Amino acid sequence: MDLTSESTTAAVVDSFAGAADPRLREILQELVPHLHDFVRNVKLTLPEWEAAIRFLTEVGQKCDENRQEFILLSDVLGISMLVETINGQESGTESTVLGPFHVVDSPERENGDTIDLIGGQPPCVVTGRVLGTDGTPLPGATVDVWQCSADGFYDVQQPDVQPPGNGRGLFRTDAEGAFAFRTVLPSHYPIPTDGPVGRMLQATGRHPYRPAHIHFIAAAPGFRTLTTHIFVAGSPHLDSDAVFAVKKSLIADFAEVDDAERARRHGVGNPFRAASVDLVLEAERVG
Amino acid sequence: MDLTSESTTAAVVDSFAGAADPRLREILQELVPHLHDFVRNVKLTLPEWEAAIRFLTEVGQKCDENRQEFILLSDVLGISMLVETINGQESGTESTVLGPFHVVDSPERENGDTIDLIGGQPPCVVTGRVLGTDGTPLPGATVDVWQCSADGFYDVQQPDVQPPGNGRGLFRTDAEGAFAFRTVLPSHYPIPTDGPVGRMLQATGRHPYRPAHIHFIAAAPGFRTLTTHIFVAGSPHLDSDAVFAVKKSLIADFAEVDDAERARRHGVGNPFRAASVDLVLEAERVG
Repeated sequence: MDLTSESTTAAVVDSFAGAADPRLREILQELVPHLHDFVRNVKLTLPEWEAAIRFLTEVGQKCDENRQEFILLSDVLGISMLVETINGQESGTESTVLGPFHVVDSPERENGDTIDLIGGQPPCVVTGRVLGTDGTPLPGATVDVWQCSADGFYDVQQPDVQPPGNGRGLFRTDAEGAFAFRTVLPSHYPIPTDGPVGRMLQATGRHPYRPAHIHFIAAAPGFRTLTTHIFVAGSPHLDSDAVFAVKKSLIADFAEVDDAERARRHGVGNPFRAASVDLVLEAERVG
Repeated sequence: MDLTSESTTAAVVDSFAGAADPRLREILQELVPHLHDFVRNVKLTLPEWEAAIRFLTEVGQKCDENRQEFILLSDVLGISMLVETINGQESGTESTVLGPFHVVDSPERENGDTIDLIGGQPPCVVTGRVLGTDGTPLPGATVDVWQCSADGFYDVQQPDVQPPGNGRGLFRTDAEGAFAFRTVLPSHYPIPTDGPVGRMLQATGRHPYRPAHIHFIAAAPGFRTLTTHIFVAGSPHLDSDAVFAVKKSLIADFAEVDDAERARRHGVGNPFRAASVDLVLEAERVG
């Protein structure tokens, strides 16, 4: 009856044989040997196991309604990006990580509205369309947008500085499948470093920075929902994103525009930055 | 620069190359490929990833000063037992898991004292010695003991029923290396099922029970500290411990004794249960 280092793994795998949900069974029966192999290969010591328990506990306890430290951990270990890559569209716009800041609902806004409620600089106009892979515009698609301020913080990180919903908007494409909003050019920023994940980055000599980007979730009936970013061309850290989320196809030019008439039309100061973003959705797979 | 499913893993491993502590680097660089392989092999979906994030967050948030849900998770996945097995003594008494209930310091007690402050039935006398592997008694060794009540609960689980320190004691071996204490025969019991780990067991059709046992940590200068249990022979669930911790050599006879004179000498009612436990420690490895 004694369990050895090897037979423990088989016993634990076997213990999940009775799971009613076959997918849950499959996941756990695959997880256990990978975790056990890791423990055996590194010959994890008891103090190291205790440190791991403490670390994971702190990650969980750092989470609240505005902070998701486990997503952050998944992000810096490249797991979020891997899951996105595995599940991404085969055609259309590439996806990337959700990130830990999609923690509040974006307020519904009209096309042309600004999501920058605090007058950040430089102003920026983002226009785009939601399309099917054959180029058909998709009217009535939702475009959920969130981004950090010019100082590199999301609203939920600065409740004393930013009003709720700053940098966020839920838009709907018009009859031509188009959307448009005003904002501030987002900054590159460090992921939150005041928690256990930040300590891990510091202990391992990794920088915490992400290149500047705007988050998008585009959804339309009959199409796969797309979670992605648009990155700002030329931003620092495009080559060493702390969460491994950059894809070349997702980098867009946020060109400086010096055109008083166009600025007036968009309701922004002159000069301003402008980006054009088409989000291409794959039809839902049937069955 | 685009990361594929495979190259993401290499990029994350490489990101830890600069860790100052070579052991931390080794652990993380081994952990990442195992986690990524798991994710790739099961083709983890986004809703499943989200469910995992929620689950781990709840595990962390269930922890408090009296509850360690991450140790419980480690226990039911067999990881705690695996770490114990890898790091166990090569000779001497076998070790087993620490478990999640070593969360408060055991009160110092004198040999012969009772750790049962609430008069549970049946009474039990535990006597034993701490020895080196050559049989030399080790005077002045500490023996930290903790166990559940006759109803199957630890003191910290029942603050309204059990006084703090019930079922716990820190003893010191006498000149002959001996220790002795009175207690109640521990019951088999379910691990706490009111948290996410309990839900996981239920979802996978696993029972939450552990066979009856007393926890021990024995320590003496110059010897390796031993963390183990003594299991009660004949207890239910010896063959299916929810945390995979049973070793045959750790099962002891808790025989019924009907001897009024011996009961009087020990200060317990007659009849009572008696177990004899020798804890054999390996000398510390040098270097």
